[in-house]
Amino acid sequence: MDDTVILSGTASNGIAEGVSHFLKLPLIKIESKLLPDGESYIRIPKDLSGKKIILVQSTYPPQDKHLIELFLLLDAAKSFNPKNLILVIPYLAYARQNQRFNEGEPISVEAILKLIRSMGVNSLITVEPHRLESLEAFEGNSLIIDPIAAFAKAIGKEFKNSVILAPDHGAIKRAEKLASLLKTDHTSLNKERDKKSGEVTLAEGNEYDFKGRDVVIIDDIVSTGGTVVKAAEFAKKNNAGKISVIAAHLIMADGCYQRLKDAGVSSIIGSNTVENTRARIIDLSEVIAEGVSSVLKTSD
Amino acid sequence: MDDTVILSGTASNGIAEGVSHFLKLPLIKIESKLLPDGESYIRIPKDLSGKKIILVQSTYPPQDKHLIELFLLLDAAKSFNPKNLILVIPYLAYARQNQRFNEGEPISVEAILKLIRSMGVNSLITVEPHRLESLEAFEGNSLIIDPIAAFAKAIGKEFKNSVILAPDHGAIKRAEKLASLLKTDHTSLNKERDKKSGEVTLAEGNEYDFKGRDVVIIDDIVSTGGTVVKAAEFAKKNNAGKISVIAAHLIMADGCYQRLKDAGVSSIIGSNTVENTRARIIDLSEVIAEGVSSVLKTSD
Repeated sequence: MDDTVILSGTASNGIAEGVSHFLKLPLIKIESKLLPDGESYIRIPKDLSGKKIILVQSTYPPQDKHLIELFLLLDAAKSFNPKNLILVIPYLAYARQNQRFNEGEPISVEAILKLIRSMGVNSLITVEPHRLESLEAFEGNSLIIDPIAAFAKAIGKEFKNSVILAPDHGAIKRAEKLASLLKTDHTSLNKERDKKSGEVTLAEGNEYDFKGRDVVIIDDIVSTGGTVVKAAEFAKKNNAGKISVIAAHLIMADGCYQRLKDAGVSSIIGSNTVENTRARIIDLSEVIAEGVSSVLKTSD
Repeated sequence: MDDTVILSGTASNGIAEGVSHFLKLPLIKIESKLLPDGESYIRIPKDLSGKKIILVQSTYPPQDKHLIELFLLLDAAKSFNPKNLILVIPYLAYARQNQRFNEGEPISVEAILKLIRSMGVNSLITVEPHRLESLEAFEGNSLIIDPIAAFAKAIGKEFKNSVILAPDHGAIKRAEKLASLLKTDHTSLNKERDKKSGEVTLAEGNEYDFKGRDVVIIDDIVSTGGTVVKAAEFAKKNNAGKISVIAAHLIMADGCYQRLKDAGVSSIIGSNTVENTRARIIDLSEVIAEGVSSVLKTSD
């Protein structure tokens, strides 16, 4: 793989370095600055003509800035006529607007994927987008990294007697998988969405006695924390011991941290797909590197 | 034109309303909000199936937010299978990175134009991009609006005895045109760029005696104000009377207003392609409406 380089974008959060380390591939860091008028300037400081380029650029907040920088990076990368252009987006912004909930809305994630493809990306790798099927809108190769095995490896010993709790239907498979890897059990909650107000509440008939056991709430993303708070309150009311939260992407918008604490969550665990200084962060570089390696093999 | 609507984006700054007024076409305002995690939400609140859609979305600061909203708006607009999708971008962000000044840089304006085209825009209308030839990178129809006639109409009486000053070579044609419309004379300055430091200074041999006459410095864009400040200082040193600045796009980054004032500029004039509350703003809606009208005719 002498002809392959890892290019670290403006929002790699250590993942480009990690992938470079695990795959023993050279790491190129881009130059970047904010121009006085508010535009981003980026530059690839090394001639990468004819190389295979693996660009790592996450799109955590500020999402729009990181997206535009991504497009500029792709334009700069294409100027070297790379043999292959593989893009790693650890956190894919706009993944939750994945359908037209109302007429006249965009399908934002499809728009983003279309834009990325239009810039000449051959293969796209991302960590657990909100809905796996969203990636089908990308017309190149794509690979989804599931972080749960890495999570189980990192936290297994501490949480092996916990109950894994899926806060809604969409998280059941995640809970099943984590429970299976930790050799423990899991349960899930049913939610209802009021069609008029859009407010989400727990449906009736959610029953479970945690009997003092620790609970790990699992989700793909924690944003305002609303979903997790409801699950934590349910767990507390039903005799849970220590309550933890684990999610791939800890966006944690304003006030989220305090809301989680107030709801009795004592431990917040996530990954380095998103910058976050208030949680325990598990490095996903190794599992992403494995994904990159498999994409490199199939594209040879 | 019963089948044609004007769609006002998140950054129209009155231009969508103006175009709607001059062309007597219905105006649709989009819904928009900022989601708690920092992503933009937009929605077109009316069924526009099969219509000709004229979307007005400028990309003044915050440029990246307005660009991403533009892409989402285009995705939403395309969901109605419009008969024609015409995009008006009064201020085109990233237009000054219009070549690879150094290897490894993007050609940012080309990247932006490619992204816009990939979203299905048929025709693009913009006001005076930094270099006219940049628009050649757009693979659809494009039309450039020259604001100078509108400027001359709006300020003609006040400035008819002024000298029009082009602060550098790139602005000479603008100065010539404004001077010709105001039936007055013009001059220009030669600048030098230090190849190592990038610093720009006035070249030697710039001489002109303004003999107490008022001076209007003209440029396409005022960003940090550096170019205009040098021209204003030159004018002051050479016996200028009142010094004014006119430019299509008044970005005016932090500190720019004060720098202009300190350099003796007493009047700052621009257009509504950019939001600006510290300058005299000339509405370009009518001249843009004329452009839209001509594009509608040729695309029928």
